[in-house]
Amino acid sequence: MNVGFLTDLLQTVAERGRDVIGRAWPQGSSASGAVRDVRQFRSTCDTLLSRRGEASGVALAASILAGYRDFDVDERMKALDALEDAYWPDTEALLAAANAYQANASAETLSSLQRAAESRRQELIRRLNLAPDGTAALVKMREDLLRFDAGAERWPGLDADFRHLFMSWFNRGFLVMRRISWRTPADILDRIIRYEAVHEIHDWSDLRRRIEPDDRRLFGFFHPQLVDDPLIFVEVALTARAPVSIGEVLAEDRDMIAAADATTAVFYSISNCQEGLRGISFGHFLIKQVAEDLKRELPNLDNFVTLSPAPGFATWLAGAAEADQSLAQAAAEGAWRTDSAEADALAPALIAAGARYLAQAKRVDGRPLDPVARFHLGNGAILDRINWPADPSDGALRSAFGLMVNYRYDLSAIELNHEAYAEKSEVIMSSAVRKLLTRKATRPLKPAKSADAAAASEQAA
Amino acid sequence: MNVGFLTDLLQTVAERGRDVIGRAWPQGSSASGAVRDVRQFRSTCDTLLSRRGEASGVALAASILAGYRDFDVDERMKALDALEDAYWPDTEALLAAANAYQANASAETLSSLQRAAESRRQELIRRLNLAPDGTAALVKMREDLLRFDAGAERWPGLDADFRHLFMSWFNRGFLVMRRISWRTPADILDRIIRYEAVHEIHDWSDLRRRIEPDDRRLFGFFHPQLVDDPLIFVEVALTARAPVSIGEVLAEDRDMIAAADATTAVFYSISNCQEGLRGISFGHFLIKQVAEDLKRELPNLDNFVTLSPAPGFATWLAGAAEADQSLAQAAAEGAWRTDSAEADALAPALIAAGARYLAQAKRVDGRPLDPVARFHLGNGAILDRINWPADPSDGALRSAFGLMVNYRYDLSAIELNHEAYAEKSEVIMSSAVRKLLTRKATRPLKPAKSADAAAASEQAA
Amino acid sequence: MNVGFLTDLLQTVAERGRDVIGRAWPQGSSASGAVRDVRQFRSTCDTLLSRRGEASGVALAASILAGYRDFDVDERMKALDALEDAYWPDTEALLAAANAYQANASAETLSSLQRAAESRRQELIRRLNLAPDGTAALVKMREDLLRFDAGAERWPGLDADFRHLFMSWFNRGFLVMRRISWRTPADILDRIIRYEAVHEIHDWSDLRRRIEPDDRRLFGFFHPQLVDDPLIFVEVALTARAPVSIGEVLAEDRDMIAAADATTAVFYSISNCQEGLRGISFGHFLIKQVAEDLKRELPNLDNFVTLSPAPGFATWLAGAAEADQSLAQAAAEGAWRTDSAEADALAPALIAAGARYLAQAKRVDGRPLDPVARFHLGNGAILDRINWPADPSDGALRSAFGLMVNYRYDLSAIELNHEAYAEKSEVIMSSAVRKLLTRKATRPLKPAKSADAAAASEQAA
Amino acid sequence: MNVGFLTDLLQTVAERGRDVIGRAWPQGSSASGAVRDVRQFRSTCDTLLSRRGEASGVALAASILAGYRDFDVDERMKALDALEDAYWPDTEALLAAANAYQANASAETLSSLQRAAESRRQELIRRLNLAPDGTAALVKMREDLLRFDAGAERWPGLDADFRHLFMSWFNRGFLVMRRISWRTPADILDRIIRYEAVHEIHDWSDLRRRIEPDDRRLFGFFHPQLVDDPLIFVEVALTARAPVSIGEVLAEDRDMIAAADATTAVFYSISNCQEGLRGISFGHFLIKQVAEDLKRELPNLDNFVTLSPAPGFATWLAGAAEADQSLAQAAAEGAWRTDSAEADALAPALIAAGARYLAQAKRVDGRPLDPVARFHLGNGAILDRINWPADPSDGALRSAFGLMVNYRYDLSAIELNHEAYAEKSEVIMSSAVRKLLTRKATRPLKPAKSADAAAASEQAA
Repeated sequence: MNVGFLTDLLQTVAERGRDVIGRAWPQGSSASGAVRDVRQFRSTCDTLLSRRGEASGVALAASILAGYRDFDVDERMKALDALEDAYWPDTEALLAAANAYQANASAETLSSLQRAAESRRQELIRRLNLAPDGTAALVKMREDLLRFDAGAERWPGLDADFRHLFMSWFNRGFLVMRRISWRTPADILDRIIRYEAVHEIHDWSDLRRRIEPDDRRLFGFFHPQLVDDPLIFVEVALTARAPVSIGEVLAEDRDMIAAADATTAVFYSISNCQEGLRGISFGHFLIKQVAEDLKRELPNLDNFVTLSPAPGFATWLAGAAEADQSLAQAAAEGAWRTDSAEADALAPALIAAGARYLAQAKRVDGRPLDPVARFHLGNGAILDRINWPADPSDGALRSAFGLMVNYRYDLSAIELNHEAYAEKSEVIMSSAVRKLLTRKATRPLKPAKSADAAAASEQAA
Repeated sequence: MNVGFLTDLLQTVAERGRDVIGRAWPQGSSASGAVRDVRQFRSTCDTLLSRRGEASGVALAASILAGYRDFDVDERMKALDALEDAYWPDTEALLAAANAYQANASAETLSSLQRAAESRRQELIRRLNLAPDGTAALVKMREDLLRFDAGAERWPGLDADFRHLFMSWFNRGFLVMRRISWRTPADILDRIIRYEAVHEIHDWSDLRRRIEPDDRRLFGFFHPQLVDDPLIFVEVALTARAPVSIGEVLAEDRDMIAAADATTAVFYSISNCQEGLRGISFGHFLIKQVAEDLKRELPNLDNFVTLSPAPGFATWLAGAAEADQSLAQAAAEGAWRTDSAEADALAPALIAAGARYLAQAKRVDGRPLDPVARFHLGNGAILDRINWPADPSDGALRSAFGLMVNYRYDLSAIELNHEAYAEKSEVIMSSAVRKLLTRKATRPLKPAKSADAAAASEQAA
Repeated sequence: MNVGFLTDLLQTVAERGRDVIGRAWPQGSSASGAVRDVRQFRSTCDTLLSRRGEASGVALAASILAGYRDFDVDERMKALDALEDAYWPDTEALLAAANAYQANASAETLSSLQRAAESRRQELIRRLNLAPDGTAALVKMREDLLRFDAGAERWPGLDADFRHLFMSWFNRGFLVMRRISWRTPADILDRIIRYEAVHEIHDWSDLRRRIEPDDRRLFGFFHPQLVDDPLIFVEVALTARAPVSIGEVLAEDRDMIAAADATTAVFYSISNCQEGLRGISFGHFLIKQVAEDLKRELPNLDNFVTLSPAPGFATWLAGAAEADQSLAQAAAEGAWRTDSAEADALAPALIAAGARYLAQAKRVDGRPLDPVARFHLGNGAILDRINWPADPSDGALRSAFGLMVNYRYDLSAIELNHEAYAEKSEVIMSSAVRKLLTRKATRPLKPAKSADAAAASEQAA
Repeated sequence: MNVGFLTDLLQTVAERGRDVIGRAWPQGSSASGAVRDVRQFRSTCDTLLSRRGEASGVALAASILAGYRDFDVDERMKALDALEDAYWPDTEALLAAANAYQANASAETLSSLQRAAESRRQELIRRLNLAPDGTAALVKMREDLLRFDAGAERWPGLDADFRHLFMSWFNRGFLVMRRISWRTPADILDRIIRYEAVHEIHDWSDLRRRIEPDDRRLFGFFHPQLVDDPLIFVEVALTARAPVSIGEVLAEDRDMIAAADATTAVFYSISNCQEGLRGISFGHFLIKQVAEDLKRELPNLDNFVTLSPAPGFATWLAGAAEADQSLAQAAAEGAWRTDSAEADALAPALIAAGARYLAQAKRVDGRPLDPVARFHLGNGAILDRINWPADPSDGALRSAFGLMVNYRYDLSAIELNHEAYAEKSEVIMSSAVRKLLTRKATRPLKPAKSADAAAASEQAA
């Protein structure tokens, strides 16, 4: 690939975008300006889909998307209604194609059926994409669709068409991973601050501590059509050992190490950025790519672990059997926050309960109850270690009594782990976690500290 | 858009590509290297589509595409067979979904039917795209498919799936227009020389004459995933008037003019570059974009015309009514090539016959017989002028007795022209061409020169 | 110029820099690592200047500059001493060349004299520049030289050689102006925050307000060898009229206007960034370039004015004649800060005193006492208007009782103004300012408000 | 360094260049257009140097350089005369400064003397550099100066000032090495074809054979201010052994090898590109940089040798002692070109004579007579092997009877070799070459083939 030429190419894109946007639309003109209302929105969509639309697609698409952008919520919902209600496939033709396929299942009848089943809305969306920055506008439109009606039950046809096209457009082969550093443009860093969904970035100094030191990394995944807006990003700490609390990672006064000396890469935060791309699975396995890239740059790295939340733990524990409820109550009361003896006393039972929650609490489909566990185990990681107390933030206390989890990515075992999980919902875990599961589930109010503490400490092996 | 950041982004892509390609695959290793034979090609595709494939998609996709690249023609055809034969939708499930839709045509049943109708091959192709340079490899694979069996009758399912995905991936909204100049990287210029399909570029000096002078332009259209390989390009001459022969345009010793003084932009050559994207209509209306861009840069430009071939004229004329056959014979004999009196005598009748061919000779669907006419009229151009003799090259003599055509793009009338053609197959033409059609169709062997010559010369008005 | 190629070129530079820096220097090795002490610093400089130094210049230069970087202040001063003491021209040879020139002033004897007069230190500095990032390191070295001994009296020879080379290297023809925006890399923005010397940038939000809105601009001037470190920058507000106080410009809740509607560009802050380039006059006339660029982009702009401090006003006023001292006292007491009647009463006299200070208070060389006045008048601006109270910040109160000044750049008169000032130290001023000078200089404690206020308000005409 | 930001920076430069150049100068206008004649050239230079020139430097400089560009040769020479005759230092002041220094040699008097000795022409040239592309125009001006009067005796002062400034501006620390490949912009490749001075590049196919195969490299050295115009370039062949003739290197049908398998890098052509930079020694040691870079990329490389011409060999041999003259005559007659027995007979004596020429023929200053030998030995290479017949081109036959030389760069010995040569003019050579020098110098007409051939073949060891 010729980067110099590509730069010029994209310079062209950028300039064209400015040109089109820079030309003021005449006031009150429906011909070339933004559409003014939902009626005109709908009629301009009709024109865009018509033969005449082929000749003036860019202008029509820009007009429609600019109009939508200027609508208020009520108008936007009506515009989505308009897209949902119209542009279905021709039912007669589709039934005929289905009959023909039933009569004779050939490549030809299948192809006819596929064409007949495709809604005209897909072609409309493809044409809307002609507008400068059209892709971003369409992603925002789906974000509205999901936000206005989380189940998307009001616009199921439109949502299905968005998903189908986005699955092609945002094919993982088109994504690009980039390190985000202190040299990254400020508008992108500003978005990172806003998008961070796990451990809030409080201000620019906090951000800087996460991206500038030699032992901290942040990788974003981008798509050429949304160039300065990341799709997902992960934050990484390079350390000498797996951390047992988020405080270790984010402390302002921590000791830094040279990246080349680190043995462990800790993925301590992963955030999706584009609500409008929900359900498009580009995030799957990106950790693997980051791990491989880091390994190539820093051959001393041996351990790739996460420091992850367990968002459903508190709810599960509170709803569990008798003994756990008293444990939940003790954890919720929070005396342990200021009384380290109490914390030491609680730790073994909470850690053991965490192990049961993550390894044994299941949904009806046999997958773990915890969504973060599903994500990492589904990626081929193993359940490596349970830490408590590990995150004193309000959110983490509320959702998990401050419990955090290390999942481990063993690059050589990812495929087998993934397959075992995918086929049999098997939760692969470290021997330390396995030992925790053999312990008695109830919590002695005054535990014989040595025994359970030993089990917990064995995790460190 | 932030071009600086984007450059870095794409630098990353380029480097990753080199990394993956640079790592040598161990000899004889099927695990990480290129697949060795069609059997392994097929089984690796199966793995890529399986759950396990999710975890190692990039390596598997690279292995499959590298293997295909190294296959000979026979193996490639067998590999295409393998893709065609497998990966169909589940017929039972599809019939059930069709029945459910027939019973109750709702958004839900439609969506189920659409999903059931989609072949698993589409997901396979999406995953193959994970390989570095995967998109280019897939386009080459479809080029094989079309080349090995021009009707694509041997692989209809595979071709339909390629078309469906390419239509999304190569959405016109993703294409970028770039001026190709003497400062463009040599590898891209080398491709332009090879791709030129209308007026052969003989060598680098010939190319330079077409791109370096101020009154010559060449625009290519690119896609970010095929970055240094154009999809289509157009060659433009900036002149003081519409040319009547290709010699005027390409002459080495022509008088140059300052671009700012030109009133006319002549599109004298349009070439598609990617055989594997045949039928994906990104070329439609690109002339319009070039015309608009030129108009913005050079406000003195008023006329946008082509100088186009008429590739079916000779065949049509030879197969036409009695009188035309003798005309065809006289044109074919070629005495006029050295005898200007003979040429003057032949001109009016040949020009009039050209007008009839372009305006009145139709296919069964009512569209013009001439493919170039269909292209430009379909774009909203008008049939403006017929020129003879206009192209003395062997190819043009064989296919059109040396006849060439000016189509005119009137930016303000393109939409209406397009619609009239699209709806009613109406051929819009200049009054000069219209007058030619009212002439008597037969050719007097010794024409009363004045009359017909006048008709031909009226075109110049 | 071919930007694509240039990008690749500079990518090469960046990678080379990383390579050289990335290779760890062996501990305690003097051969390839950083020099360890001043003695070795000196001997390695000797080697670099010798013939042998030609063969291994890059490594030697890197070793010397890395050693200097790691020195403490005392070692650095000794290293500067070493550079000062050695590397003088050969006195004998220089005297001989001077004599030869005196005997016969020819091109040849002059050239010999010039060569003999050039210190060997200049060649040493040229060779130190071979190190990666050598230019930046040398600029930092001169910054030390000026910082450690502000008058540079301890190292006059070294300082003269730095100045001579920097004058060539930082030729204004090599500087590049760039708009700094919210899309600029964060490390550069971070430097802008630190370098701002006039109106402190309090945090990232404050910075953002100065660079992101459509009616705010910040332009930096860069040199290719110090690429991400600006040399100087100016902040511009686009407004409907010249502002009379800094509060108008920086207020968080101000009304924004569209840039295209602005008639006035206000240069409200100019900061030099590189202390090590003090005395290299690249800053002269850069305002003119910004003004011309803005005028081209925004043709409605008609007025180019500054809103400038008057840093010597308070000192001058306190040291002035009897009446002014009482004025100074009243201004210093600051009752007017909370009592608007008092402020109204003081304004006319302070504004008139400001006019006298700027227009009539002179240095022995006839130039104005005020350094900011010298800068703008020397650039060809005129003294347009005096504003009080205009800047309530502590610094401005201390140095100028809160007075600020508008200088006006009339693009068509800059050359003449500049010449009048350069040749005759003439202070060109608006008629409003001129009227202020004709007022009686003393301040009535209870002014007949109407009269002087009128004079002040006439300025607005 | 932040490449993305730098790209934007240079984009700015490029656009500014286009802007300034794009604005047409009014015909016959002396105010803003190109100067019309030498008188105006001179007066505009005066203005540019004056105080007024500070305010409008860019326009004045552009006007002067554009005028010079449009001058014919006679006008250009007169313009150079004007620059030579004016702008000398003030003789009185210079003598005074020399006297002051003689009276008291202090840092202060030295500095005054240096300033007094600097011609005002240097400041003029610095200001001319303000024009867009000013640096390139000034380099071209010095090219004229050298071309019009090779000894530069007509313009010694001007030449000295150019040299002084160019030595600073083109400091080796500012140069950038870039691989030139088939992906390089065509305009740069076109310049490579024109600049190649050793082994002519016949056409684009010839060029492509030198830059596209994996075992061929071409490296150019660039300066940011002359971005797409190389200063010097070297051509490299990666091979399995040192070649003994240029035919081996350039043969169209040679066997290619993978770069990673090569053990030897052959520098077979080095060309300076900018005549106007003659005497600015940026070329020195660039081979070392290329060798180091190649070694890093391709660790198997062990031998770095040249295949170099010996341009003075024929003249020297013809002017040598009796025996050599008959050898020269036999070589010149050229019977050996078609008679391989004759060639075999001649080879030992010619190779031995070549060894004597390169190792023993000296200038009065003790350096070798051969300029290429001086270049490589001065770089720290050793004289490794003499090859005959090695270059059948007309030029090589005329200047060296077809003899070529391998110089070897041993990266670990370069410094010592360089020092021995620099201090003592010592020619370091291989043992094989040394043995050749011990042979009897005369040429037996029918040599006892075995003995001398053995000496020649020993070289291969």
